Amino acid sequence: MMKTVKERLETLRKDMKKNGQNYIFFTTADSHMSEYVGECFKEREYFSGFTGSNGNLLVGDKDAYLWTDGRYFVQAEKELAGSGITLMKMGSSGVPTLFEFLEKTLESGDVLATDGRRISVTNGLKFEDVCKKNGALFDFSYALQDSLWTKRPMQEFGNVWTLDEKYSGESTENKIAKVFSEMEKKKATDFFLSKLDDIMWLFNLRGCDIKCNPVAYSYAHFSDGKILLFLKNGAYATEISDYFRRIGIETRDYETIDDYLKKQAEHTNEKRRILLDFSANGYSIYQAFSKLGEVENFENMTGLWKAVKNETEQNNLKNIYLKDSVALTKFICYIKQNYEKERITEASAAKKIDLLRQGIPEFIDLSFPTISAYGENAAMMHYEADENEDVILERGGIYLVDSGGQYHGGTTDVTRSLILGEVSPEVKKHFTLVCIGMLRLQNARFMSGCTGRNLDILARAPLWNEAMDYKCGTGHGIGYMLNVHEGPQNISWQKRENVAEAPLVPGMLVSDEPGVYVAGSHGIRTENILLCEKYAENEDGEFLCFHPLTLVPIDLDGILPEFMTTEDRRNLNEYHSKVYEELSPYLNDEEKNWLKNVTKAV
Amino acid sequence: MMKTVKERLETLRKDMKKNGQNYIFFTTADSHMSEYVGECFKEREYFSGFTGSNGNLLVGDKDAYLWTDGRYFVQAEKELAGSGITLMKMGSSGVPTLFEFLEKTLESGDVLATDGRRISVTNGLKFEDVCKKNGALFDFSYALQDSLWTKRPMQEFGNVWTLDEKYSGESTENKIAKVFSEMEKKKATDFFLSKLDDIMWLFNLRGCDIKCNPVAYSYAHFSDGKILLFLKNGAYATEISDYFRRIGIETRDYETIDDYLKKQAEHTNEKRRILLDFSANGYSIYQAFSKLGEVENFENMTGLWKAVKNETEQNNLKNIYLKDSVALTKFICYIKQNYEKERITEASAAKKIDLLRQGIPEFIDLSFPTISAYGENAAMMHYEADENEDVILERGGIYLVDSGGQYHGGTTDVTRSLILGEVSPEVKKHFTLVCIGMLRLQNARFMSGCTGRNLDILARAPLWNEAMDYKCGTGHGIGYMLNVHEGPQNISWQKRENVAEAPLVPGMLVSDEPGVYVAGSHGIRTENILLCEKYAENEDGEFLCFHPLTLVPIDLDGILPEFMTTEDRRNLNEYHSKVYEELSPYLNDEEKNWLKNVTKAV
Repeated sequence: MMKTVKERLETLRKDMKKNGQNYIFFTTADSHMSEYVGECFKEREYFSGFTGSNGNLLVGDKDAYLWTDGRYFVQAEKELAGSGITLMKMGSSGVPTLFEFLEKTLESGDVLATDGRRISVTNGLKFEDVCKKNGALFDFSYALQDSLWTKRPMQEFGNVWTLDEKYSGESTENKIAKVFSEMEKKKATDFFLSKLDDIMWLFNLRGCDIKCNPVAYSYAHFSDGKILLFLKNGAYATEISDYFRRIGIETRDYETIDDYLKKQAEHTNEKRRILLDFSANGYSIYQAFSKLGEVENFENMTGLWKAVKNETEQNNLKNIYLKDSVALTKFICYIKQNYEKERITEASAAKKIDLLRQGIPEFIDLSFPTISAYGENAAMMHYEADENEDVILERGGIYLVDSGGQYHGGTTDVTRSLILGEVSPEVKKHFTLVCIGMLRLQNARFMSGCTGRNLDILARAPLWNEAMDYKCGTGHGIGYMLNVHEGPQNISWQKRENVAEAPLVPGMLVSDEPGVYVAGSHGIRTENILLCEKYAENEDGEFLCFHPLTLVPIDLDGILPEFMTTEDRRNLNEYHSKVYEELSPYLNDEEKNWLKNVTKAV
Repeated sequence: MMKTVKERLETLRKDMKKNGQNYIFFTTADSHMSEYVGECFKEREYFSGFTGSNGNLLVGDKDAYLWTDGRYFVQAEKELAGSGITLMKMGSSGVPTLFEFLEKTLESGDVLATDGRRISVTNGLKFEDVCKKNGALFDFSYALQDSLWTKRPMQEFGNVWTLDEKYSGESTENKIAKVFSEMEKKKATDFFLSKLDDIMWLFNLRGCDIKCNPVAYSYAHFSDGKILLFLKNGAYATEISDYFRRIGIETRDYETIDDYLKKQAEHTNEKRRILLDFSANGYSIYQAFSKLGEVENFENMTGLWKAVKNETEQNNLKNIYLKDSVALTKFICYIKQNYEKERITEASAAKKIDLLRQGIPEFIDLSFPTISAYGENAAMMHYEADENEDVILERGGIYLVDSGGQYHGGTTDVTRSLILGEVSPEVKKHFTLVCIGMLRLQNARFMSGCTGRNLDILARAPLWNEAMDYKCGTGHGIGYMLNVHEGPQNISWQKRENVAEAPLVPGMLVSDEPGVYVAGSHGIRTENILLCEKYAENEDGEFLCFHPLTLVPIDLDGILPEFMTTEDRRNLNEYHSKVYEELSPYLNDEEKNWLKNVTKAV
């Protein structure tokens, strides 16, 4: 693989030389700023070998650099080894950001090229800025030639289907009326959307164009009371376009978007005021609209609306999380009881849990490729088991499984770490600290207005007390029958650049997943999904709390109660008694007995 | 008093009518954006009767509105009663901010007048903006006529003195060299400072122009390698100006500043790039410099440098806090043992603790007027005892004392709440929750890079768990022989508008002062001052913790151990055993026995 990457870079550099380009920048996104992207968009992976979901690759005449975040440090080191690409660990002390690096490195007259459709407006403006500062040229019209990526896959389009109101809980008419009303408040004539999950939510559509993400490639343009929805011709039934036409939505072919944008840029109209989320649209779109009128950076209202699950969605979620929890609990029971009796590997275990999920009638797809990692592999936060280098689950290690499903009724995401046989007291201590932190956040009660930055320390303090940390956020939002990661809320102590902090609101989901990652040794993560709810309201204001949707036992074999306070033990025991109570009706006698035992009070 | 305020407003309104003004805005600041201001600057107090340290008064043709924050809600309600002024509770739901209010209220053609020297640049720009939006005129040249404030006091100037290096720990030469180097980095030609405590720190000066704040009225202008320091002529010894001259600092008369600024505005020089902290300079200064060249909003570097106490300062602080803690502990012993035997009142108790501080050889002044509050008076966070309405300390209530001193070697600030006789279980529970929160924050260990927004929940969670909250921050920075409140760090879960969050850094001080305030019933606050220190450094990064400088017992008569976790009890017992160990050498036998008993383990 590494030899291949080197060769690919060599070919690319020849082409760069021919075209007078000093740097080419590749990132992870597709034209919709998606986190997970279709195969045809994986240029960064093609030229680096790095498979993580977040990475920026800068290829220079001689050197190349890849920036990624703490979830992927271990994995990236492994995948980049031998490629000649320097790993830039984002957020580590002394490591410059991409733009700090460019500010130091770019020389006057240099040409920096990138595909303007694949970088956000925010980043495009930063490239503009740093190039201007250093006297370099920013060429955003770059498009990778087919000859440089032989056998590049085609963009894939699957069926598009509509979501019944018993699943969506709110009609498309209602949602689009809210958009227009918000545009009026903002005195905007136009609102353009590229973000696939936002478009899916808004039009009550679902697709299957990106693996594990039930979205369809699309764009939407609201302007002067009109709505244009760009969808791949032939991917949807005529009933859908007929219905849309009846409620004032005109469908256009997805493939015509580039021409459409070109046309927007042809006429200047000073009265047009275009709302565009700079973090969720391609820089090329901004370039087109900024010729038409005044473009305003605007955090998608759809993002916030989508994040706050309505009553229908909440009820469906509770039902689905229960079924998903039953499946995972059965899986855990199987692993714990059988790993010494039969040959279970990372890959076969992943297949097992995936099959259990597929047995749930509402199942549609996985919500992400199952992370099934034993021993030191679990130290890689987003590890994917490799059938060619399969690892056997055996005594004396920890097995981590992070998995979830897409169902009619919700998207799940859950992690458990299982203690197989005896592990060292140090590892047990780590396991206990992670458990304590997860439960403290789950049991938080807090003032309305708090954001994840206020709450993060609840999950992290047990580790910080021991001078340990995990290099990622504690939690993310989760879609409803949509992407497993969504905003705007998250749980993280650090400020995110250019991203407004979103207060937690009743109806929002967040994951709660502290961890310990010791490279070359072990990885531990325990993850529940929490639903934010109102807890009290009085003269001091409104108070919120969390309701755990995930109901799966936490392995008591890793718990050292002496590190827990009375409160921590109560947290664990109350959670476990709820787990037993809710799951036991769905288990057979053997599983029920097992669950009774593994949820006993400590 | 209320009658007087009404009459004053009437006179003011007559003058407004004559001059065609629809609104006059008065705030709390002097020309240096000081938090506590000299008597001559108290226009807002004169026209409202409200004596708190934070308040914005908007006087209209018919109505008047006063905005203040949660610390002052109870007090402001009391002080404004009958004045006809509407109290606007900042941060309460449904209450518009000053500028939201103006946006709704200002009509086209309205004239809004204010003294541009007394409002920050930030606010000046907001007034500009809202007036422009609504078609109103913003007149910032307003200066209150003497006839409208009869017997207005003169601005007071006291002696200015220099701080020896055994107190400052760093020479003036060093500090100013750092300023120039920072200006060079920012490619700035000018840097203008109005903030008094920053100027005092930078030039190692101290004064006594504002009660309890050892500062002297001054301005400083760094430009092209030159330094002008504006100080009141005659307020300092010629040795000081001679010394300053030798190190390249020219002193000018404070009274010439208006003329000096006028001259700056006369010439435009495109090459001049002026650094100005928009939150810490008057809007008039911005107006002058924006005519001269390009003005950049810039958070004072001096503010951050000043906040990080050097080794000399830290050592002096430890010594001073010990002496201050001894004085307060003796006071507490006296109150607890004598309030039933003799007549002790809020005012006499305040006098008593003030005298004890004055007995410390290093004493200079109080750091703020002692808050000595019994029973329901303690629900007012910044209550000041009134000799005319004195209240006797008696059984069955809580007595709160928040006090501190200015010393050669540091500035102190500490609060304790004393249980006198029996109080209800509910009050004891409140007392216990406050104590738990204070100690949890004090014992925090956290990642370098954390700000007060990350930590606040540690102090507040015990109350949030019970659906209670206090409507103010948990902690503030503290000056060194300077203002008792200083930035840039603080402990608060809420975002402050226009203020960058400052990460905690070893050497910084913060107060840790959660509380419970039940209007008409009781107030509880327990406050320690914490020094931020490094705790560990490893491959996960740098970890910080706090070292409590304050060593004063927390009243066990208010503690209900059943509400504390094992960890909370350990926090309390460890703190108390440290208090006993450190203080006992300075107490007489009777006090020592008493302290032994009140610091026993729970």
